[in-house]
Amino acid sequence: MRTQVAIIGAGPAGLLLGQLLHEAGIDNVIVERQSADYVLGRIRAGVLEQVTMDLLAQARVDARAQAEGLPHDGIELLFQGARHRIDLHGLTDGRRVTVYGQTEVTRDLMAAREAAGLHTFYNADRVALHDFDSAQPRVDFVQDGVARTIDCDFIAGCDGFHGVSRASVPPAALQLYEKVYPFGWLGVLADVPPVSHELIYANTARGFALCSMRSTTRSRYYVQVPVDERVERWSDEAFWNELRVRLDSEARERLVTGPSLEKSIAPLRSFVAEPLRFGSLFLAGDAAHIVPPTGAKGLNLAAADVGYLSRALEIFYRERSPSALDRYSDLCLRRVWKAERFSWWFTSLMHRFPDTGEFGQKIQEAELDYLVHSPAASTALAENYVGLPLEDF
Amino acid sequence: MRTQVAIIGAGPAGLLLGQLLHEAGIDNVIVERQSADYVLGRIRAGVLEQVTMDLLAQARVDARAQAEGLPHDGIELLFQGARHRIDLHGLTDGRRVTVYGQTEVTRDLMAAREAAGLHTFYNADRVALHDFDSAQPRVDFVQDGVARTIDCDFIAGCDGFHGVSRASVPPAALQLYEKVYPFGWLGVLADVPPVSHELIYANTARGFALCSMRSTTRSRYYVQVPVDERVERWSDEAFWNELRVRLDSEARERLVTGPSLEKSIAPLRSFVAEPLRFGSLFLAGDAAHIVPPTGAKGLNLAAADVGYLSRALEIFYRERSPSALDRYSDLCLRRVWKAERFSWWFTSLMHRFPDTGEFGQKIQEAELDYLVHSPAASTALAENYVGLPLEDF
Repeated sequence: MRTQVAIIGAGPAGLLLGQLLHEAGIDNVIVERQSADYVLGRIRAGVLEQVTMDLLAQARVDARAQAEGLPHDGIELLFQGARHRIDLHGLTDGRRVTVYGQTEVTRDLMAAREAAGLHTFYNADRVALHDFDSAQPRVDFVQDGVARTIDCDFIAGCDGFHGVSRASVPPAALQLYEKVYPFGWLGVLADVPPVSHELIYANTARGFALCSMRSTTRSRYYVQVPVDERVERWSDEAFWNELRVRLDSEARERLVTGPSLEKSIAPLRSFVAEPLRFGSLFLAGDAAHIVPPTGAKGLNLAAADVGYLSRALEIFYRERSPSALDRYSDLCLRRVWKAERFSWWFTSLMHRFPDTGEFGQKIQEAELDYLVHSPAASTALAENYVGLPLEDF
Repeated sequence: MRTQVAIIGAGPAGLLLGQLLHEAGIDNVIVERQSADYVLGRIRAGVLEQVTMDLLAQARVDARAQAEGLPHDGIELLFQGARHRIDLHGLTDGRRVTVYGQTEVTRDLMAAREAAGLHTFYNADRVALHDFDSAQPRVDFVQDGVARTIDCDFIAGCDGFHGVSRASVPPAALQLYEKVYPFGWLGVLADVPPVSHELIYANTARGFALCSMRSTTRSRYYVQVPVDERVERWSDEAFWNELRVRLDSEARERLVTGPSLEKSIAPLRSFVAEPLRFGSLFLAGDAAHIVPPTGAKGLNLAAADVGYLSRALEIFYRERSPSALDRYSDLCLRRVWKAERFSWWFTSLMHRFPDTGEFGQKIQEAELDYLVHSPAASTALAENYVGLPLEDF
């Protein structure tokens, strides 16, 4: 078969790209290694930037996120036993974030794709990208024992960190940047009301904690654990006890606990592969970059990438000009690095590192004290948290 | 002899404290281990915050600094070969810094002290602080072979990092915080016009450089060197060549070189000793804290400390209330730690560290790119650079 854009990966990045291209009248097909249920089963981020909401609107997949998502106008920083609110809305001329689970975004995008009659090949084995150094790339794979080929103009690699897309690029053509953090996040999802109506980021003597949520009845909590910690060692009770002691007294009293729906440990990593374009192949989202989850930039960066890519492809097909596609990698990377910087900074500020030391701890406290009392510093946090604007091609 | 406040150290901190106390009608005597000429021979900082200028005015020692100092409304950040201006004045509601050498500040303070007939014991040997855990402390020393004793109400330890004041405190009473940086600054003072009318802070592949000045005819330049570098290895020519390659092309062309008046390597260190008060002894300036020179906070922090201390002593003698003295340590330390945070951050942002790595370097570039383009981030830099305001007791 033939399409204009073959998209590798049916996560939120690939699905959103598909809808954006469809709205722009550009034909596309998605190839996904896993089943739809498997993709939906991944528990991930839940905080959407305004940029991401705008892109969902552009893709006409924002109805449920608008109706059921929780607009958040602020976050709270907890340190030295007291909470301090960062007024995201007031500091950024009225921007905000929306709490709406990645699983729900994916579900909405899948439903829209199905309603539009767009094709996704799930359970695609042995996906292989060919000839993307030419203008006639193709994607081969096997589905249900049948070998298939998609001929296309472009391939969009939206298949995540472990996907085939980046792995298909000759290593010598890639510049990799990486930082691995010496701790992980032990996370619990539970059907209990959140301890507070806004997110609480806590810097404590026992390490970082995050009180987050998916809805008014489903909470997502995290505590920093050593990088080699094993999830089997953590009973629900042990988790709740550890979370509780990392909260302030008011939150401690308000905390409602319950059985975990999901419990897992995620490592923290910063990673960027440059460039994002190799001939007819474009990388987007986790295929090209990973951020630590502090600040919730992962899904949002992926959305911004495919926002840029869909615009560049639209310009290509409408104006027959490659200029926007030529700028895709640079434009994305500039914003990606700012988000990498923010995620690294926010992670460094909020966690206990094995080598933080007493001087480093005092610096953290001084920075937090400065941050919540300086309107300029609070604004710098807020404008990054709600998401820096997309630039024009 | 007897005085109200015995000040240890005739550097700018001790001298400024003496004048501020004198203006407040509080009797004081200074004891200095070195000669006046030795003190004046130390080549140090040259950028005064508005807070420092205001304190010089309060001490009535600002006439020459006002007349001859160079008001600076901005600084320039040089990275990836291009300079970007930070508009200190525009970003901080009209605040600025004044370029005026520490040597000149010291000279003005010495002249004012002499004119006021206030006594300074120079060349004081074997200075010893006694009974400062009581309300009758005293300072013993030997001058020209004569043993002397000063009985006083309070002792102000303004005698720097290596002075006797902090060393007189029982180690168990001190909490020390320290960070040593893996590089130094090779500095040259020369009677050549500065390369630019504002300071240039440069982040380059070869390391940090700073183009500073003392006046329109005297320049002060620095390049980052390895921590174990020896100044003997650097001819003037080698220094100018190294500085030149760290500048942008315009600055490179404008650079005027000449014989060095002074050439030395300074290590970079962050250090804080807590608390700042031990009974009747109060530490101020370098005796209690050191910052790396990036951002020029050292002299300014010392001035702020003695500003707080003179106000607290004034309140004590006027109202017979110890409440301000009781708050001295906390109030100083809160601002000290913010300046420590700023100096550490600005140092980290602008230097190449042995362990920076490729990820760290990209983060530096992303932060600099963000910093010069975000008004909020620029303002956060500017408000720290011009100096955070003093708080009230």
